[in-house]
Amino acid sequence: MSPAEPAPLTDREGYYRRLGQKNMAPLWEVMKGLVPNEPVPSPAPAIWRWNDVQDLVMEAGDIITAKEAERRVLVLENPALAGTSCITQSLYAGLQIILPGEVAASHRHSQSALRFVLSGDGAYTAVDGERTTMSPGDFVITPPWTWHDHGNESDHPMVWLDGLDVPLVGFLDAGFKEDYPDDKQPITRPEGDSLARFGEGLLPAGHDGSSNCSPVFNYPYERSREALATLDRDQERDPCFGVRLKYVNPVNGDYAMPTIGTFLQLLPQGFTTAPYRATDATVFSLIEGRGRTVIGDELLEWGARDVFVVPAWSWYRHEVEEESVLFSFSNRPVQEKLGLFREERGEKTS
Amino acid sequence: MSPAEPAPLTDREGYYRRLGQKNMAPLWEVMKGLVPNEPVPSPAPAIWRWNDVQDLVMEAGDIITAKEAERRVLVLENPALAGTSCITQSLYAGLQIILPGEVAASHRHSQSALRFVLSGDGAYTAVDGERTTMSPGDFVITPPWTWHDHGNESDHPMVWLDGLDVPLVGFLDAGFKEDYPDDKQPITRPEGDSLARFGEGLLPAGHDGSSNCSPVFNYPYERSREALATLDRDQERDPCFGVRLKYVNPVNGDYAMPTIGTFLQLLPQGFTTAPYRATDATVFSLIEGRGRTVIGDELLEWGARDVFVVPAWSWYRHEVEEESVLFSFSNRPVQEKLGLFREERGEKTS
Amino acid sequence: MSPAEPAPLTDREGYYRRLGQKNMAPLWEVMKGLVPNEPVPSPAPAIWRWNDVQDLVMEAGDIITAKEAERRVLVLENPALAGTSCITQSLYAGLQIILPGEVAASHRHSQSALRFVLSGDGAYTAVDGERTTMSPGDFVITPPWTWHDHGNESDHPMVWLDGLDVPLVGFLDAGFKEDYPDDKQPITRPEGDSLARFGEGLLPAGHDGSSNCSPVFNYPYERSREALATLDRDQERDPCFGVRLKYVNPVNGDYAMPTIGTFLQLLPQGFTTAPYRATDATVFSLIEGRGRTVIGDELLEWGARDVFVVPAWSWYRHEVEEESVLFSFSNRPVQEKLGLFREERGEKTS
Amino acid sequence: MSPAEPAPLTDREGYYRRLGQKNMAPLWEVMKGLVPNEPVPSPAPAIWRWNDVQDLVMEAGDIITAKEAERRVLVLENPALAGTSCITQSLYAGLQIILPGEVAASHRHSQSALRFVLSGDGAYTAVDGERTTMSPGDFVITPPWTWHDHGNESDHPMVWLDGLDVPLVGFLDAGFKEDYPDDKQPITRPEGDSLARFGEGLLPAGHDGSSNCSPVFNYPYERSREALATLDRDQERDPCFGVRLKYVNPVNGDYAMPTIGTFLQLLPQGFTTAPYRATDATVFSLIEGRGRTVIGDELLEWGARDVFVVPAWSWYRHEVEEESVLFSFSNRPVQEKLGLFREERGEKTS
Repeated sequence: MSPAEPAPLTDREGYYRRLGQKNMAPLWEVMKGLVPNEPVPSPAPAIWRWNDVQDLVMEAGDIITAKEAERRVLVLENPALAGTSCITQSLYAGLQIILPGEVAASHRHSQSALRFVLSGDGAYTAVDGERTTMSPGDFVITPPWTWHDHGNESDHPMVWLDGLDVPLVGFLDAGFKEDYPDDKQPITRPEGDSLARFGEGLLPAGHDGSSNCSPVFNYPYERSREALATLDRDQERDPCFGVRLKYVNPVNGDYAMPTIGTFLQLLPQGFTTAPYRATDATVFSLIEGRGRTVIGDELLEWGARDVFVVPAWSWYRHEVEEESVLFSFSNRPVQEKLGLFREERGEKTS
Repeated sequence: MSPAEPAPLTDREGYYRRLGQKNMAPLWEVMKGLVPNEPVPSPAPAIWRWNDVQDLVMEAGDIITAKEAERRVLVLENPALAGTSCITQSLYAGLQIILPGEVAASHRHSQSALRFVLSGDGAYTAVDGERTTMSPGDFVITPPWTWHDHGNESDHPMVWLDGLDVPLVGFLDAGFKEDYPDDKQPITRPEGDSLARFGEGLLPAGHDGSSNCSPVFNYPYERSREALATLDRDQERDPCFGVRLKYVNPVNGDYAMPTIGTFLQLLPQGFTTAPYRATDATVFSLIEGRGRTVIGDELLEWGARDVFVVPAWSWYRHEVEEESVLFSFSNRPVQEKLGLFREERGEKTS
Repeated sequence: MSPAEPAPLTDREGYYRRLGQKNMAPLWEVMKGLVPNEPVPSPAPAIWRWNDVQDLVMEAGDIITAKEAERRVLVLENPALAGTSCITQSLYAGLQIILPGEVAASHRHSQSALRFVLSGDGAYTAVDGERTTMSPGDFVITPPWTWHDHGNESDHPMVWLDGLDVPLVGFLDAGFKEDYPDDKQPITRPEGDSLARFGEGLLPAGHDGSSNCSPVFNYPYERSREALATLDRDQERDPCFGVRLKYVNPVNGDYAMPTIGTFLQLLPQGFTTAPYRATDATVFSLIEGRGRTVIGDELLEWGARDVFVVPAWSWYRHEVEEESVLFSFSNRPVQEKLGLFREERGEKTS
Repeated sequence: MSPAEPAPLTDREGYYRRLGQKNMAPLWEVMKGLVPNEPVPSPAPAIWRWNDVQDLVMEAGDIITAKEAERRVLVLENPALAGTSCITQSLYAGLQIILPGEVAASHRHSQSALRFVLSGDGAYTAVDGERTTMSPGDFVITPPWTWHDHGNESDHPMVWLDGLDVPLVGFLDAGFKEDYPDDKQPITRPEGDSLARFGEGLLPAGHDGSSNCSPVFNYPYERSREALATLDRDQERDPCFGVRLKYVNPVNGDYAMPTIGTFLQLLPQGFTTAPYRATDATVFSLIEGRGRTVIGDELLEWGARDVFVVPAWSWYRHEVEEESVLFSFSNRPVQEKLGLFREERGEKTS
């Protein structure tokens, strides 16, 4: 055995072939790709403009019934991840439409799901025996393994943005799903019960606090928006984020969901954020405002109800034309729990 | 050395005397008292009825100025702990009055303090650069080592119940206090800032969460009362507690203060609670309602703005004549953190 | 009502008398004492020298049987807290002697207990079905509410230092005690089981980790001493502490017991520590070495098997003549959990 | 808009095409695959027998120098995941060989790495300024973002099993890597320092405990093996696991690494485990013993130094011929932190 002289390439090829027969491979030929110096994210920046896609969303109502579809959702697929149903490598997003009189049947799954309401008023989500009526800007969650269904008893279609950790759970081989015997689960608690129980600065006296997902499942826009407005009076704006709040589980102050972090931020008219990048690819949407986001060389112009995505570890900044409220979500809780999250702030140039 | 025959008593006396000279003592003579089979609490049940004490409280305004007193408070002293300024062994309670135009000067201390507003409207508490205006039923805290002062800019006297962990901190030899150079601390944030920042189901995105005390320092009665009313519609009442919520720190879901647990509970008209006892002696007050509490052989009749105390490990039950909202506080967080808390539920007899 | 002119003193006396009749008292007359600017600890520095007390300890074996005494312990009572059986305000300490053939009967209590073995070899402590044989310098715990008994099957008396949170648990009115039906509890696990299960860097795969006390109940001096020696080779000595380790619960890295913090530290020959003070009054003992501790104006000379106490918030330093290994305990976990702990380091002058 | 009649298939095709142009896709066509009823793991059971691969491992020493390779590792690639360098979907494993006199140069990366020593004695791993000498059965970790290098100063080749979370970190786009300027990092602490500081039931008094990875980086087989032997004397064997311990971080009792859970288990001669399955695909190796594992229809015969993998959610059981000590690792900490872990125990049939 003499390591002094490396083997001729031809010998290596034969050796590699014999390795392959034993399900082995030489690390040194692939190490650079496996352990890169910094993230080389595969997703691309992308935007789905409401004006562009609204008709297609509405048309889905003609194409398939809610009953047949189980969930009538148009997946927002990252153009760089074609065929994967992913908007980032670990997250899924879609636009769901539910028509008057329809029900999206009750089921439960290991995946965490969020809804950010874009259009319409008065449809409901039922979670674990309680209904909540939804309005634009509301942030609604359906925690892992809880029965949930949606229904529209208003006389308008309703559309919301869905966000799920479907790719992550698939990657971990840890997903289970079950259908409820009926379309609708029984309602056992009055509307507003969860918010009263957990959302007013108090908790049930004997609550055990062991759940990893928020028991509050609707964070009404009315309250969140008012909080942002109050804080904006301070004028203490973060250069990268403006005024930015994170939705939390009141039982432990952690993110509202175990795998998906969600934020709401106010950017005043004329504000330009300082450059920022982080290891969590992020999906943005907004219910009011207008502006643009510059990601490396790309420029995404956005307005109300648009959805766009910023890849991991890519410098970006927002430029605001009209006061905007941006909702965003990413896998940051996963990265933080695993000790992997990194972020970097740049200098504001203008 | 022969342990077979115990020493005559006379020998023991001499031995004990020699021990005493070395600052030693025989454990076996005191062990029963030091390590009892179950708690033998020294505090007694007691009540301070608003109608009884109201005049004395108001009279304090003639006796001493707020400036001279620093805090114009009448200590509620447990009759079984005379001379100690304690309402239970580890807690202090008092009635504080502040007259129109007065200021209770700014200071800070290691002790945690709570206020439960009994009478008057419009005085403020300032904590760490922010003011909150107080109304009856509001639960207000001044966290350890934060500057705080009170002022009354209304045209009526205001009275609240003070609760502090003064005896506990003294027992632990861990108390520090400092006066602010001026009577009033500077106000740097708009009213409502803390509640917007922490009290709406969201937290500041970069918040570090390391504090052990709630950054929300006013829990308005309006919100708490509404939450109780919503939950009471469920009709799921705990036999011992009715509908009962605990005030929490939204940053971690823990008690609002590190050493004092605080609760608000709704007891419907005609409700009688099942017998209950726990190792935390508890101070109760109420802003609305009427009823009585039976503690062992004693019966305490109470109404709005009364304050009463239930000793540790004493069976008690509440009997409600008019729908009542009880505020209560105890050292339960201390006992839970140290693994000492015990409780026991009895059978409802009627 | 006119606060401008304070009431004459005579009026105040009458007012105070009327307050007293209602179990009330004026805070402003006692506030300075209740809320001091900094701790005014009541315990005093004190030392119990082994040479001074050894004969009295041995004599206890003639005075009373282990059976009659239940625990044959000489309480070390702080001279400033006479009659309280306390060595500090919240802690108890004593010297326990057990003679060959004796058993200290099995019981359990809410109080946490520690043993630091001073003299003798071969007696055992049994905890929860497992025995451990004890040697000088071993740190042994009996967690709250676990059955424990001691026995001496060697042919020499054994003496150890007991430390308990008896005053703290009494102050909180939270103590329970129960005697086991027999003197000895049944032994169900082989000696060394706990250490193998929890003390080798591994934990049982399904362990739930909910206990707040270490499942390892003997920390053998052999291992602890060797660890200190290894670390001392680094020569990275803390100016205030030399080389200092804290005994931990391997299940969560917290203190070994919920209420009592315990430490072992190595001070090399000739070392003088920098001045230090903290809010936790501390009891020291040592199994080897010789030196002195200067506490304010007092000087305590110590050697092997001595026990001494440093009051809270008192500046002190150690001066070492022979390499010393100091064991110490205090209520620091309590203060840390409640957010009350403070410490201060001074400049080394020599 | 009429949802009553679903669109003809031909219309759907056109619609889908138009969706595709906007980077959208119909969820209902892929939902079953994205959200399966239970995990459909893609990895397959596989084994790498030491006898089969030993020559190829040794031959690697002729094929490439350690210097050229940076890490001379043969990747164990799951046959069902060809081309991905993965042994399970989220984990990487390989066999690393280092020859006498060689150094595997110092670098650091976001990925967590473990080593389980299979063959040879006396090479070292250096982590963060400290070296540890390795022996067969030792479990060695190199925490995320710590400098680490390996060297062989013995006169024999050394081979160990490498396990890393490379695929997981890649999936999360969160990997960084840096090379140290020199091959070897400077050594600043004596060998054994970490173990003395953290591994004997004590922790440095001022340790902050914030790291999410164990500061002990070698868990010597000698200690682990002895712990298993002690516990096996209890005869309390888990039907599915025999005697099984998990390697932990002594600072918090959590897994030794944030993303990879590691276990060591003793299975006595003749023992057959009860059927078990869990959502974490698991890699096994062993340093002593002989037996087989039945996974669904497959049977893997194993002996010392073999490596094999059990896919997620697949029933399996071990049948032991000679007393065996199995080392194993999986992504269980990830699944537990995210609330995704599930397991199921079956009935023992024989």
